[in-house]
Amino acid sequence: MNGRNIAQLLFGSRLATKEEQEERIGGFSALPNLGLDALSSAAYGPEAALTILLPAGAAGIRALGPLTLAIVVLMGIVCLSYRQTIAAYPNGGGSYIVAKENLGEQLGLVAASALMLDYVLNVAVGISAGVGAVISAIPSLEPHTLSLCLVLLAVLTLVNLRGVREAGLVFLLPTYAFIGCLGATMIAGVAKAIASGGHPSPATAVRELPHATATLSIVLLLRAFASGCTALTGVEAVSNAVPIFRAPTTRRAQRTLVGIVAILALLLAGCAVLCRAYHIGATEPGRAGYESVLSQLVGAVAGRGVFYAVTMGSIFCVLSLSANTSFMDFPRVCHLLAVDRYLPPEYAHRGRRLVFSAGILALAACAAVLLIVFRGVTDRLIPLFAIGAFLAFTFSQAGMVRHWQKHPGSHRRKSLVLNATGAVATGITALVVVTSKFLEGAWISVLLVGGLVLLFRRIHAYYREVERETDCASTPLVTLDLPAKKAPIVIVPVKDWNFVVQRALRFSVKLSSDVRAVQVVGADIDAGDLRRRWRALVETPLRRVGIDPPRLDIVPSDDRRLFAPLLDYVFRVRDENPDRDITVVVPEKVERRWYHTLLLTHHASVLKTLLLLEGGKRVVVVSAPWYLRE
Amino acid sequence: MNGRNIAQLLFGSRLATKEEQEERIGGFSALPNLGLDALSSAAYGPEAALTILLPAGAAGIRALGPLTLAIVVLMGIVCLSYRQTIAAYPNGGGSYIVAKENLGEQLGLVAASALMLDYVLNVAVGISAGVGAVISAIPSLEPHTLSLCLVLLAVLTLVNLRGVREAGLVFLLPTYAFIGCLGATMIAGVAKAIASGGHPSPATAVRELPHATATLSIVLLLRAFASGCTALTGVEAVSNAVPIFRAPTTRRAQRTLVGIVAILALLLAGCAVLCRAYHIGATEPGRAGYESVLSQLVGAVAGRGVFYAVTMGSIFCVLSLSANTSFMDFPRVCHLLAVDRYLPPEYAHRGRRLVFSAGILALAACAAVLLIVFRGVTDRLIPLFAIGAFLAFTFSQAGMVRHWQKHPGSHRRKSLVLNATGAVATGITALVVVTSKFLEGAWISVLLVGGLVLLFRRIHAYYREVERETDCASTPLVTLDLPAKKAPIVIVPVKDWNFVVQRALRFSVKLSSDVRAVQVVGADIDAGDLRRRWRALVETPLRRVGIDPPRLDIVPSDDRRLFAPLLDYVFRVRDENPDRDITVVVPEKVERRWYHTLLLTHHASVLKTLLLLEGGKRVVVVSAPWYLRE
Repeated sequence: MNGRNIAQLLFGSRLATKEEQEERIGGFSALPNLGLDALSSAAYGPEAALTILLPAGAAGIRALGPLTLAIVVLMGIVCLSYRQTIAAYPNGGGSYIVAKENLGEQLGLVAASALMLDYVLNVAVGISAGVGAVISAIPSLEPHTLSLCLVLLAVLTLVNLRGVREAGLVFLLPTYAFIGCLGATMIAGVAKAIASGGHPSPATAVRELPHATATLSIVLLLRAFASGCTALTGVEAVSNAVPIFRAPTTRRAQRTLVGIVAILALLLAGCAVLCRAYHIGATEPGRAGYESVLSQLVGAVAGRGVFYAVTMGSIFCVLSLSANTSFMDFPRVCHLLAVDRYLPPEYAHRGRRLVFSAGILALAACAAVLLIVFRGVTDRLIPLFAIGAFLAFTFSQAGMVRHWQKHPGSHRRKSLVLNATGAVATGITALVVVTSKFLEGAWISVLLVGGLVLLFRRIHAYYREVERETDCASTPLVTLDLPAKKAPIVIVPVKDWNFVVQRALRFSVKLSSDVRAVQVVGADIDAGDLRRRWRALVETPLRRVGIDPPRLDIVPSDDRRLFAPLLDYVFRVRDENPDRDITVVVPEKVERRWYHTLLLTHHASVLKTLLLLEGGKRVVVVSAPWYLRE
Repeated sequence: MNGRNIAQLLFGSRLATKEEQEERIGGFSALPNLGLDALSSAAYGPEAALTILLPAGAAGIRALGPLTLAIVVLMGIVCLSYRQTIAAYPNGGGSYIVAKENLGEQLGLVAASALMLDYVLNVAVGISAGVGAVISAIPSLEPHTLSLCLVLLAVLTLVNLRGVREAGLVFLLPTYAFIGCLGATMIAGVAKAIASGGHPSPATAVRELPHATATLSIVLLLRAFASGCTALTGVEAVSNAVPIFRAPTTRRAQRTLVGIVAILALLLAGCAVLCRAYHIGATEPGRAGYESVLSQLVGAVAGRGVFYAVTMGSIFCVLSLSANTSFMDFPRVCHLLAVDRYLPPEYAHRGRRLVFSAGILALAACAAVLLIVFRGVTDRLIPLFAIGAFLAFTFSQAGMVRHWQKHPGSHRRKSLVLNATGAVATGITALVVVTSKFLEGAWISVLLVGGLVLLFRRIHAYYREVERETDCASTPLVTLDLPAKKAPIVIVPVKDWNFVVQRALRFSVKLSSDVRAVQVVGADIDAGDLRRRWRALVETPLRRVGIDPPRLDIVPSDDRRLFAPLLDYVFRVRDENPDRDITVVVPEKVERRWYHTLLLTHHASVLKTLLLLEGGKRVVVVSAPWYLRE
């Protein structure tokens, strides 16, 4: 099985550019791809808020209702806002595009950096949360935490490299199982609550709430709100990835967005209602006896039977796979940045399966570094999270406000108000999130976003400079100096007398009549001195056919260095002949198998690289390959 | 500070080949270099034997005396044997050389492989033992075990890369402190024992021995002997490294060897006597309350004061630094193998400080892999140990027997008998060691030695084949076909119109009148189509000065691939013109700073590599560099 077959097996066959249309997907398969991040929030958003409310006891649980309402309203505003963005930017209206086009390049870069940071964190945190859940079920796997995380990351990477359509199919079952199971729990729970007049008796005994140790202050409520707002991350995914939808693209994208948000809102609301009805609060995370809110809730409604196991299984799956949404969007942001030359051109191009492979690999690499550094336990990264998303939300909505100001239309006024409301709401939320988490780690996010923006600007400046230097627009090939220039001086480094050297010399005497062979002689260099044999081997036979023979120059090396004397020689010849080009013909043995390559000296490659880096404009390097074992 | 200055600081200034004589050392500084491995055995040899004897209770301790006597006698035989080897092989008589010259290449390779395996294990085990000792003193360092091991390994590597003389100076103090402290303990202990009529009272209370649970069987004694024989590892070091001694080389080497063995024998004997006098036995390793035999012994003789602390400190140092002997010898074995072309030529050459740098780095890399795989705790590797040393001893002695058979001399008969005794004794010991540890891991050593021998033979076969293929001994440069061959067809891949491409085209039209520019056009390839502008940019100006202009060929790419269409084009031209050489001139942007290099596409490098690998004999690759920001 050769390399090509392995690639075929891993990634599937290469798709032609014109097959793009067939790789697009509908709402049903887009939902698992683009909704996983948002929907998985149902598993941790309410829990995060309740954990903050823990010291307030029963009052805290009563506060969950209004808090959830606020979050759902915010989500509704964001959803309607993004619905408009999708309509206005049918080619993909991620925060970068919207902010750039309406607020200028700089704020566009801030939005892009914030979003990219969040995507990387989402992958690392999502994967380690999923693996953490598996490990709390099977504790004997604990020593393999990191390996499991990396395997999961590799699988996600591979599935996404295979293309959008295949990824959608893989994530279909767990996503819809999650929605179905949680939805059924909510409906059954609410029905029971109504039937029992608001006081249902739990199927599994519910934990006693700890006594309140604090009153429900405004600060506590704001902190709970900030934590609960992590439920909004991932909502922007659809607007960024509009082009992956089949026609009618805009309508499908809008419907998918509304579908995701509606399902998420229902799950969050159901969760709040049931927590109150069954008196379910958070348990101290990281302590003995910890149990997640959803686990308590499903247990209380449905008991601990098969349904409980299936539901918890689907929650684990969705948590671990929520990273997938990042794999959809991160490469698209990279692509847009690369098109605008804020990233290397590799990120702009689609790979064999029409996805932006370079971006997928970059995301996987960043997430892998985080997972390895934190050994698969990324709890400490959570405070860095969500800030990026809210920054991006805010810039995106603010950009849309500007957009409506510039583009008059029939619904302009209504749209402007809607987006302005969104911008203010998400802006305030961003401020709340940054303030309440600043010392816990949000400052790192702020620094990282700033650093990324600087990096992108430096990269951009570099590309502009390179273009300015090499651009010659429509200057024709200047030719006046061409006939005047003399033939190049050809230098051939030789180590010993063999067929490889012979071939290089034969090639050289065709290039120029001024060929110089140069041999380095010294301890440890292994050179059979060629001086004695040069006349018989080279000079006489060449003179016989009327060709000027190359001369042999010997360079001594008294400190066992090979390259320094050679380079010195080449540079001396170059400097002594300011009007001539220098062509260095490097004899090189080539071996096709990598393990044989390990056995050859890489003197030729090193020499070529050094000449390329140090040679200067007049030095051209020629590889004269000799193929071993043909 | 540039790369050159950093190298200067890390490794010291480059030494000229003729400075070799000044890098040689005398016996006093050679002892820490070559004796560390052997001397450190005093810290674990008796302990290893006593641990095996543990079930036999007090009878086990009484058996230590005769066992130590046997080991010391064996050591004496080996020492006398190697003394002769040094005299017979003044250029370094490692087991590889002696076995190869007298028993044939194959057995030489077996000896070399066995020794190399042992050297790698010695580094990993020595370093982790040293770090383990430090950690048992400062338990809070435990989470950093691996990092500490790797730092220690890096320091050893660096010191050895700086040259033999500097390494000797670094290890001087700990080695002589170790000898001094342990020697003083032995003398004081023996004096106390004699003064008290054989029953000295310990300064610190000695642990109660556990009750015997087994009788002292022959099997138990043999196993204890096999474990105790680890004390002999490292004795061969001097014979291998004879050339590092100042003149009179042979005499200095012999004196150093005898000195090392004599000190080690005294330490071992003292240890056995004092264990018996103070009733000191081993404690169960890895269990709570474990204390090393030497720690008990020093405590019993001198109490737990400052002397105790200094002595234990010197033991820790010597254990961790015992790896250094491997750094002296492993690279020399590699050097010899490379000279005989069983390893790549890099291993044969001396680096900037006249040491075999490639071998030092290879040893460090192997040891680092072992340390990382076992996370710095290499206890499980100990059963693999010592087998290599005894295999090498046996082959070396057997080789010397053959040597004396071939080289008659005045002391021939005596020498032959001595080496034959050594061969038989070490051969039997090797058998005992392999048998008693076979299932614990010795089988792995046997397999690894076999694998290494096979690898060396394959490498050798490869080099022989390459030489056979490229060797043309004194065939002159054949020239009959030279004038007949037509000028090459030059192919220039162009992406867009810029100065880089211009320069490549100008170089090309000087090479041949048949130049073909080729452009790949397709989605994601970013090509500004050149067809329209070719006439104005290239054809007209060149025709004006009387040069045949290059034609432009457009190659479509409908699946976004860049290299495949280019290679297909080159190979098609090559196959359509079987009588012509093909020269591919690759325009290339060169950037000197590595971080800028990251931003350039590496299309030129990839294309050059692919052409080199796939092009075949008639394709020559030319780099036409364009230097950015000059």
